[in-house]
Formats: sequence, structure tokens, C-alpha cells
Amino acid sequence: MAIIVQKYGGTSVADPDRIKDIARRIAKAKAAGDDLVVVVSAMGNTTDNLIALAGRVSGNPSDRDLDMLMSTGEQVTAALLTMALHDLGVEAVSLTGTQVGIITDSAHREAKILEISTEKITDYLKRGHVIVVAGFQGMDNSHNITTLGRGGSDTTAVALAAVLKADVCKIYKDVEGIYTADPRIVSGARKIDRVNYDEMLEMASLGAQVLQSRAVEFAKKYGITLEVLSSFTDAPGTLVCEEVDEMEDMVIRGVTVDCGEAKLTIQRVPDRPGIAATIFGAMADGNINVDMIIQNVSEDGFTDVSFTVSRDDFKKAVRVLEKVSSMMGAKGVSSDEKIAKVSVVGVGMRSHKGVASKMFNALAHEKINIEMISTSEIKISCVVDASDADRAARALHKAFELDR
Amino acid sequence: MAIIVQKYGGTSVADPDRIKDIARRIAKAKAAGDDLVVVVSAMGNTTDNLIALAGRVSGNPSDRDLDMLMSTGEQVTAALLTMALHDLGVEAVSLTGTQVGIITDSAHREAKILEISTEKITDYLKRGHVIVVAGFQGMDNSHNITTLGRGGSDTTAVALAAVLKADVCKIYKDVEGIYTADPRIVSGARKIDRVNYDEMLEMASLGAQVLQSRAVEFAKKYGITLEVLSSFTDAPGTLVCEEVDEMEDMVIRGVTVDCGEAKLTIQRVPDRPGIAATIFGAMADGNINVDMIIQNVSEDGFTDVSFTVSRDDFKKAVRVLEKVSSMMGAKGVSSDEKIAKVSVVGVGMRSHKGVASKMFNALAHEKINIEMISTSEIKISCVVDASDADRAARALHKAFELDR
Repeated sequence: MAIIVQKYGGTSVADPDRIKDIARRIAKAKAAGDDLVVVVSAMGNTTDNLIALAGRVSGNPSDRDLDMLMSTGEQVTAALLTMALHDLGVEAVSLTGTQVGIITDSAHREAKILEISTEKITDYLKRGHVIVVAGFQGMDNSHNITTLGRGGSDTTAVALAAVLKADVCKIYKDVEGIYTADPRIVSGARKIDRVNYDEMLEMASLGAQVLQSRAVEFAKKYGITLEVLSSFTDAPGTLVCEEVDEMEDMVIRGVTVDCGEAKLTIQRVPDRPGIAATIFGAMADGNINVDMIIQNVSEDGFTDVSFTVSRDDFKKAVRVLEKVSSMMGAKGVSSDEKIAKVSVVGVGMRSHKGVASKMFNALAHEKINIEMISTSEIKISCVVDASDADRAARALHKAFELDR
Repeated sequence: MAIIVQKYGGTSVADPDRIKDIARRIAKAKAAGDDLVVVVSAMGNTTDNLIALAGRVSGNPSDRDLDMLMSTGEQVTAALLTMALHDLGVEAVSLTGTQVGIITDSAHREAKILEISTEKITDYLKRGHVIVVAGFQGMDNSHNITTLGRGGSDTTAVALAAVLKADVCKIYKDVEGIYTADPRIVSGARKIDRVNYDEMLEMASLGAQVLQSRAVEFAKKYGITLEVLSSFTDAPGTLVCEEVDEMEDMVIRGVTVDCGEAKLTIQRVPDRPGIAATIFGAMADGNINVDMIIQNVSEDGFTDVSFTVSRDDFKKAVRVLEKVSSMMGAKGVSSDEKIAKVSVVGVGMRSHKGVASKMFNALAHEKINIEMISTSEIKISCVVDASDADRAARALHKAFELDR
């Protein structure tokens, strides 16, 4: 009998009717004979509502208190789903992260899982129960309740799949899987049948918001096959797994658009050894992650350095860079929030030449100006003006024949 | 330094503004130098809302699932109140029942506390923290979350006061204390300064809804002084404690009205030995608690037997009694839901004669018909027509000079 971990996100359990729907889905899977561990998120906007409530009692709530507060959301869903399962005659039991024995470090709001006790779960599985686990949460060694940060319930599911040696971890979403591009932007976007961990990681970090990088990293590390699929239909989803031979036929797996970054430029900085170290040392001290970097060719002993940061860090980055600018005797700082990063991702790139030139040609053909470029073994990213982003995605999707 | 347990009910923490208000109250008490353990209920109607949510996913949710669900309400309040305390610069920590180590039996929804670990609390108290405990909840020996039933947060507070050997357990309400009668009915009702445990128990079970009997029993058993007071004002409240001499001066402590019962009569039942055993055995088998009983004088070998039951059990009781009636060859069953039980309570009764006749005279003077009577060492109860109840309470309050 296979052990299967299922995970349902907030949209899939948004209201009592959806929860009853999910219960019927689980009952069917259970009747098919599998051992099921189900991980649930908080219902719909519950987490946001709880955070708003916190904002009404405190200007600056502590992370421990927020974890105490937010972890109730998943507990509520777990209790309700278990009731719905009981109503269908399915033996089931709900467990909080604490009750399972999901031990994390003490980094509240972004805790890392250290250890998971399987005793209680395997005991209930032996007795034929469906286990419904409140996702996103654990406890540290002093029994403080912790949460796992963004995408935490995915992480709970993958971690449970790893320790239980589950056959597959099914991540149920409000979409049918991973697409070659965002279907809202590219009308010909197709669902991908299989994608390998590295491609998925690149796509996740480049703006495909279906899976969080962290859960994929975990799955890769422990060799867990993920399936991303819809909780609203019965269509097969996308498998995320180790590379397989047939994958090589596809040069590019997908096109992503990320509008979450902004560009900063320090202008006419005296071109001396160590300027990069000074600029990016200051960013690191400010706890600001820098993504893409370009340095112009030096002219008259001066140069421009541009880089991108997450839009969340933008204001802080401008402040830091302005200090650096005056310290280094540069002309000043300019910035651009209206940028987008368009990327093509695929492990096939490793063995196919000419992907970059095909990409640049496709964009040139559309008269789209490329502001910055960065590459890795399996992806190429170009920063373009935000107003060109959707057109760029459509052009690339077509150029790489992803709609076929 | 005194240890004080405070308990705030749902109305006292109904919204973020109330929670901030309570935090200021706690900060003041903390600044006065006491060690504080604060027990909180769920905010306002949270528990009812959660039960309604359960009703939307299941027709018959299990008690374990309901405990899992409902216990989140108090956890939310504990987290929010702790945030509000931190905002005021007060060192504080929130703990669930599980985190405190409140061990109960496994009777979900009405669990009894078996044991409380004081280690974590005393450790935090030593470090100067205010401890905010989610009331109403514990866990059984298998780590299942349990709840303590009606008035459960009061029970949590009193139990913590007992194990911590607290100086006093302050129960904050939306009223200023225990009154000589319900002020909504009797305009001259006065706040009582002190009441002894037994009087409070009688008053609680006779309709004074300010304190649950269970918490009072616990307080009596462990000799914990309770203070019932308002979270909205700074007025002193009512002390519930062991009997003291001055208490004897008061013959009657208060007047209560209970509209929660209904009366059943089995008519013209053949008067044989054992009829009471048959009738009340059947009620006990049906798990129906019977309160007051009267049996009329036998006439021609037939008699009527009347008794009262909780209105919640009324329909079930009628069904059971109709079966008994046909089995015993009685004439039939009549019932009356429009009754009220009016009582006078006071330990002074033990040493004062004539309380009963004074009560009967006061009612007769108002032309109020007494349908049933029951007495204990410290209370006398009369069942009257529901429409006479308020008038009866006012007459008794005046006759026993409780407004002086």
C-alpha cells in the first residue's frame, strides 16, 4: 500500500463547501487503498485577517506572538476537514504541528524543520486513519509554536513525504499544474507534464508562483516526486522529479515573467579597484539581496554600475546607495521601478547551443530593448521595460515553440 | 511578592480596543509589583462562531474535533493580549494549555483537570514575565487537545491559582461583582462584598450566571479566594471565600431567579410502593437530571407526582414519562414550561429561624401562588408561574431587607 501525502492550499479550503468537496476527494483516494497524510493551509484569507487583527493591537508584534496567532488558522482547517471526513464515514484524525512532533529551530516566522517524529502518524496509519496535519507550523525544543514562512504548508507536506518515505507528494492548487508560461499573459501556454527539480527551482525563483523554492529544494534533496494539480478538477497535473531522458528533447521548459524587482544605478563612480566590493558590501550590511549586476565599460576613469533588488527592499536600497554614492564621489543615483525580468528556463539548454541568440533575436524582432542580462546553466534572464514584459513573454513562448 | 491569577472573559476581550484596555490594566498591576498569571477566554462570540462553522461542514462533529477547533479561540486571545502587553513594554509570554502542561482526562468537551505542571510558569515568573494562558483547554495523556466545558476558563484560572498557591484569583467580568439579585429585575439590588463558597455554589446553581459552579467548587476545595470584579471599572468586586463571622449577621445573601426549568406531572398514578423508583429510574436511564419533586397526598389509591427538569431535557423527559405513564396505568402526563424557580440563599439561615415563613408570607402578600418548594440548609426555593417571577424576586429582596 502506497503512502501518499496530499497538501491543500488556502483557496482549496476557502469555505465549508470547499472543505466538504476536498473531503469527498480524500474519501475517494482512501477507498482506492492508499495510506493518506493530508496537510492543510489556513482557509482563504485567514492568515491575512489574523495579521490585520495583530496590527490592531500592536504596532510591532513580536514574531513569537505572531506564530502563536497564525498557527491557529491551519488548526481550524485541520479540525473542520476531519469533521467533514468523519461525516463521510472516513476514519480520520487531526494533528497540529506540535502533536505530530515537527521540531524546528527557534527562528519564529521562518523556522527550519530539524526533525519530525513519525511515531504518532505511523501508528494512526496502521489503524487505517487518514491523518490531517495543520501545515505551516512546528514547535522548537522549548515547545514554542513556530511557523515555517512563506509556502510553509508545502514545506510541511514535502518534509512529511520525506520522513514517511511517501510515494508521491501531491500539491493541490487552484491551477492544474505548472505551465509553459502564465496563461493569463500567454494564451498558448500549455500545462507541462514533467519538469525537473532544477528547472522548477529556477522557474519558482523567476516568478512562477505555483511552488515555493524551499519546498522544491526539500523535494530535490530527498528525491520526493511532487505532483502539482488542481483541487477543482480531476485533470492530471505536473510531475516535478529527477531528470529523465525524454526531457532532453525540450530545449526550453517555460517562460517566466517577474515584476517583483527594481533597478538602481550609481552614476559616474570613479573606476577604482574595489568599487563593487564597497557597493555590494553596503547592500549586504543592509541585509538587501542583490540579483542582477552590470558594470558599464569605463569612460574617462568613471563608470556606471546597475543592479536589481527585490521591490520590497527598493526604498532601503536607494537610501544605502545614496550614502555610498556621496562617500565614493559618484555623480548620483538613479532608479527604475518599472522593469520586468523575462526568463527562459530548461535543462535542455545544457546540450543545445544558440538558446541565448534565439532569445535576443526574438526580443529584437519585437523591438524590445534589453537592459540587463543574466544567465545560468539552465536559464537566461533579460530585464526589459515593464510595459514590454507581456509582449516579450508571448514572443519567447512562440520562438521556442512552447505552444506546440 | 504576591502571585495573582487574573481571568478575563469573552466580553472583556471582545475586540482589539478591549484587549489593549486589559493590557493597560495588567501593566498597572504588574507595576504594583505582583507576579501575574492571566487566563483569557476567546474573544466575544468566537466560540459560537467556530461551532457554527463546524455545523456547516458536519451534521454531527465529534467532540475531539470540536476541541481541536474551539481551543484556537483562546489561543488567539492569548497571542493578541501578549502583543498588546509587549507594546506597553511589559515582559510577557503566551502559553496554550498544552504548553503550560495542563493535563486532563480524555472526556472531550468536558474534560477534568488531572494535573498541572508549574515548571514553565514559575520559570517565566522568576524572569519577571506576565504569563498569558489560553483558558478552557488542556491536553490528555496522549497529547489530544481537550476543553473543560462551560465556564472552563474560570476553572483554568482557579486551578492555576491552586497549584501556584496564588493569593487571590480575580475573575474579571462585565459586571462589578455578585449582586443580591439580578439588577435588571430588582432595581434595589446591591453588590455583595463577601459571599461564602456554599452560598456562591447555591446561587450559581440557582440561576446567578456570574460564576460557574465548577470553578467555585474548585476554589472551595483548595481554599482559593476568588474576587469577581469588572474589567470595565476600577470598583472593588465581590470576594468569594471561607465563611467569616460577620457574615452571620446577614440572614439572606441574595435572591435568584432561574427560568431554565420546566415542570412535568404524571396524573392519577396508582399509589403503590416503588412508584417513585420507577419514574425516576426511567429518568436516570434517560440521563435526565431531576431537580424538585413533589408527590400529592393519595386519594382513592391514586396520586399525582410532579417534578422539574432542565428545559434542555424537557422534550426527552416528556417522551420518557409518557412511556412510564402507560406502563403504570396512570391517567396521563401534563407539563408546564412557564415556570420559574425563585430562591433565597444565605448561610445565616443556619442560625436564624423563620426564614421560610417570611418567604411564604412575602409571596402570599403579593398573591403569588407557590407550586413547589424545596429547601437545603442554606437556601429555600419556590416554583412559581413564570409571569410572577420578577415580582416575586422584588418582594423577597424587599422582605429580607437586601436593599438596605
